[in-house]
Amino acid sequence: MPSVKAWDRAMAPRARCSPVAVRRCLPILAWLPSYSARWLRMDLIAGLSVGLTVIPQALAYAEVAGLPPQYGLYSAFMGCFVYLFLGTSRDVTLGPTAIMSLLVSFYTVHEPAYAVLLAFLSGCIQLAMGFLRLGFLLDFISCPVIKGFTSAAAVTIGFGQVKNLLGLQNIPRQFFLQVYHIFLSIGDTRVGDAVLGLVCMVLLLLLKLMRDHTPPVHPEMPLGARLSHGLVWTATTARNALVVSFSALVAYAFEEMGSQPFTLTGAIAGGLPPMRIPPFSVTTANRTVSFTQMVQDMGAGLAVVPLMGLLESLAVAKAFASQNNYRIDTNQELLAIGLTNTLGSLVSSYPVTGSFGRTAVNAQSGVCTPAGGLVTGVLVLLSLSYLTPLFSFIPKSALAAVIIMAVAPLFDTKIFGTLWRVKRLDLLPLGATFLLCFWEVQYGILAGALVSLLLLLHSAARPETQVREGPVLVLQPASGLHFPAVEALREAIARPALEVCPPRSMILVCSHVCSVDYTVVLGLGQLLEDFHKRGVRLVFVGLRVPVLRALLAADLKGFQCFSTLEEAEKYLMQDLGLEPYDICEDSDAAPEHTATLLQA
Amino acid sequence: MPSVKAWDRAMAPRARCSPVAVRRCLPILAWLPSYSARWLRMDLIAGLSVGLTVIPQALAYAEVAGLPPQYGLYSAFMGCFVYLFLGTSRDVTLGPTAIMSLLVSFYTVHEPAYAVLLAFLSGCIQLAMGFLRLGFLLDFISCPVIKGFTSAAAVTIGFGQVKNLLGLQNIPRQFFLQVYHIFLSIGDTRVGDAVLGLVCMVLLLLLKLMRDHTPPVHPEMPLGARLSHGLVWTATTARNALVVSFSALVAYAFEEMGSQPFTLTGAIAGGLPPMRIPPFSVTTANRTVSFTQMVQDMGAGLAVVPLMGLLESLAVAKAFASQNNYRIDTNQELLAIGLTNTLGSLVSSYPVTGSFGRTAVNAQSGVCTPAGGLVTGVLVLLSLSYLTPLFSFIPKSALAAVIIMAVAPLFDTKIFGTLWRVKRLDLLPLGATFLLCFWEVQYGILAGALVSLLLLLHSAARPETQVREGPVLVLQPASGLHFPAVEALREAIARPALEVCPPRSMILVCSHVCSVDYTVVLGLGQLLEDFHKRGVRLVFVGLRVPVLRALLAADLKGFQCFSTLEEAEKYLMQDLGLEPYDICEDSDAAPEHTATLLQA
Repeated sequence: MPSVKAWDRAMAPRARCSPVAVRRCLPILAWLPSYSARWLRMDLIAGLSVGLTVIPQALAYAEVAGLPPQYGLYSAFMGCFVYLFLGTSRDVTLGPTAIMSLLVSFYTVHEPAYAVLLAFLSGCIQLAMGFLRLGFLLDFISCPVIKGFTSAAAVTIGFGQVKNLLGLQNIPRQFFLQVYHIFLSIGDTRVGDAVLGLVCMVLLLLLKLMRDHTPPVHPEMPLGARLSHGLVWTATTARNALVVSFSALVAYAFEEMGSQPFTLTGAIAGGLPPMRIPPFSVTTANRTVSFTQMVQDMGAGLAVVPLMGLLESLAVAKAFASQNNYRIDTNQELLAIGLTNTLGSLVSSYPVTGSFGRTAVNAQSGVCTPAGGLVTGVLVLLSLSYLTPLFSFIPKSALAAVIIMAVAPLFDTKIFGTLWRVKRLDLLPLGATFLLCFWEVQYGILAGALVSLLLLLHSAARPETQVREGPVLVLQPASGLHFPAVEALREAIARPALEVCPPRSMILVCSHVCSVDYTVVLGLGQLLEDFHKRGVRLVFVGLRVPVLRALLAADLKGFQCFSTLEEAEKYLMQDLGLEPYDICEDSDAAPEHTATLLQA
Repeated sequence: MPSVKAWDRAMAPRARCSPVAVRRCLPILAWLPSYSARWLRMDLIAGLSVGLTVIPQALAYAEVAGLPPQYGLYSAFMGCFVYLFLGTSRDVTLGPTAIMSLLVSFYTVHEPAYAVLLAFLSGCIQLAMGFLRLGFLLDFISCPVIKGFTSAAAVTIGFGQVKNLLGLQNIPRQFFLQVYHIFLSIGDTRVGDAVLGLVCMVLLLLLKLMRDHTPPVHPEMPLGARLSHGLVWTATTARNALVVSFSALVAYAFEEMGSQPFTLTGAIAGGLPPMRIPPFSVTTANRTVSFTQMVQDMGAGLAVVPLMGLLESLAVAKAFASQNNYRIDTNQELLAIGLTNTLGSLVSSYPVTGSFGRTAVNAQSGVCTPAGGLVTGVLVLLSLSYLTPLFSFIPKSALAAVIIMAVAPLFDTKIFGTLWRVKRLDLLPLGATFLLCFWEVQYGILAGALVSLLLLLHSAARPETQVREGPVLVLQPASGLHFPAVEALREAIARPALEVCPPRSMILVCSHVCSVDYTVVLGLGQLLEDFHKRGVRLVFVGLRVPVLRALLAADLKGFQCFSTLEEAEKYLMQDLGLEPYDICEDSDAAPEHTATLLQA
């Protein structure tokens, strides 16, 4: 990427024209002063490429969200403008995405007023999380949960488009009912829609493959080669726009000929969206729904939508920051996405987030700053003003093909094998999330997160311990000690030492224990008493400073510690009246050294 | 204790007269064959002592539970009989306790039918937990939470008796309202009740102090000394019965004289409780409450009561097992308490658990087997059959004195100082539990458990890391790595290594990491890529076998590991074109040894 160094220099923490704090909040101040003509040219190309991708996708995703098509476009420009000022990644583009559209369809009863209010409330929640620095909450959603969710979403979204691809009518939206009804009415397939949809899919696939296999351009190439290269690049990058325009043209031609084999998108409300505060109540034909009722109707959506929005956006930003070697500011990203949703709701946007596909288009087009978003945003506004009459000719099956090709890569087939090899237990949260997401997304994510946490807690509650037999027992917990582990530890210590005849002394090697809580200290104190009553000893080795400090502060009766295992063994041997027993050859090794031997 | 060896031998895992599995389920089969005349004598004395304690306490605790006094006695005998067959501790006595009575008063609207149904359902839940081996759930309630709960309960119960101590009428039961109304109507104090209550408290305190300071009896003592010793022992052990009988006598004398300065307990329904299935619906004056409604009314009580019952019972059993050097079977204890509550509900018992105070009386009386409970149970049944007319003369303030003296030791004043010294963070769950328990017990326990868990998760999410500067950076996480820690780890590694100019290679010392999950593996893989892109290296040292296996299975690009820190440093130095830098003197130490140096 030619601009990496310049972007990095511009975003480096040494301010040139403004105090650091202001530049942190408004990253545009960092790069705008260094803006150059070359950056402008690159940003223009990238902005156009993204614009040509987002317009057809926005129309299609609005369908996924269960909203009129124009709402996709309403949602596609605010993110570009807000991110221009607040973004800390040059690649990210915010806008409607397949997954957020699916979530919106779950939580908003296909009523635009709900979707806009959800965007407003999600934005407020995201802003609050940004201001309260609660971004760390996202750390508790583990990778298998995210993979399970995105894979289930890909299946749900993809399958949800089969009815449009085949031109089927009156199919319910609930996943299982949908599967059932599609198979039931497969005979009603409209040939025109099905053929067009499949052709579009094949075209999109071919163009994508072409893009992936085009050799990079060289400055030494002859002009003709570079021109044809540019043509291929444009066609493959704007493939969504190309395929959709082509199918709209075909549909228009049929319409002119007086017959229409395709199901069309139909009339789209044109013009810019009105600027107004989000609807805090909604009046339908026969009744008014209050704000409280709307919030209750959206329910868990108010947690799932903001969290998933942040997760998706951050994941995209991190992936491209890592790929292109720059750093993002997590908290600033939270604020950017929160403000996009809040302000977006003023122009009838539904919740948006970072789009992986369009961010990739942006990066591959060589974007240099978030200014590329300005071009994209203006393009969307222009299309809303002038192109909506043409959009009505877009066949639904062409949009379905766009969606299916966009979500197909989200289904990660290799993850099951990878987890089987790397960490089998992680298949549990993955499986729980994947399966339950077909029932209700929030239950899937919640169940997955809970299973992840339970696995984590289980490892904290049942730490592995290694025991070495001998005249003196040596026991070493393999990891830290926390309160849920106390009972298991007491059991692990008492069984070989106190529940035998005669009872035996024990050395507890604590080199892997970096801190203890009061419950653990109390448990160790009771163990010391138990040992004392049986006339044997429990001594400690390899205590780190905070642990030693806590044990000394608790003033445990009979507490003894040694810095090395050898010292402790020598002491206990003399106590037993035995000769010191030579266990390992190099007797001046550190306690951890012997601890390593234990593991072998 | 003279009988320790005998009990231990009887309960030892080598069966003499029955298969091990049967003896595990029916521990009575283990000790009954060895039962001796000496055991019988000791058990008789202990059973009588406990009986004389439980009868006045049962009457008093029923008041705490908001039930008619006879329900305390109904609850006091089933535990003795069940524990005789199922108990694995010779000291524990099950029955009504102050804390369970308080919980019952919260969740049962002071209606016996609710209390009995709660006993039945709690018993079923406890039995289920026993059969499903869910006892480990109790490990997640940390010591500060238990201390906070018992201290708050002591204050609530103790303060709840002030109104009876002063003879005040019409005081609400809610804690804060109670405090307010008691101060409001302090002028209405009945002198007779107040004087009697204070006298009883002083008497109980004196008798308790006498008991604690009586020198142990010697067989060489003259008969007179032994007799007076026995007298003091009896008086101090049965001090509750003594004080209550004494005040009832005083009240009876006043009654005969035609004036009554005390508020009396009043008529108590006599006779044994009817044997019948628990009430699954209840009909009040004007309506019938269905089972579903009753369950909804009890709400969180269905979780709090069984869990707290198990916790209290197990805590008592463990404390005395440790004190008297024998082992209990946690799961068997779960079954015993569960069956006690289930069967108890057939004889109108409310939920019971192990009583700390009476178990202490039992142990100090030299009980040898759970057969002591048989005596206690029979004593309670006899008192129900023949003594209830006399109980009506017991002044309420005398019972209040019994309760206050019983719960006073539950308030642990030293715990705050201890936690301040040992682990300040643990003051958080303690404080949260203590304060919220005054509002609603379930919120207090839930909040405390959550705070404990959050502290645990925080330590898992933000592991400490130690960094050593030098030509090659060395970083060592102080504890295990789990998925919530990935972001923090990436930050901790990238900041000193990659966000500097020029970027630097790093050695990651993983000797304290005992396992990794997929999210961690993925994060490490991304770090490896980041290092690779910057042209530097990240190498691993001290990987334990499961961690190494997971990293190898994930097939990470550029993964390199060394068995010692020295090897890794030598390799990276050669890579940098520098001479190896001698860090520690004994260069053949294990990696953990150098890790120790890092910590210093």
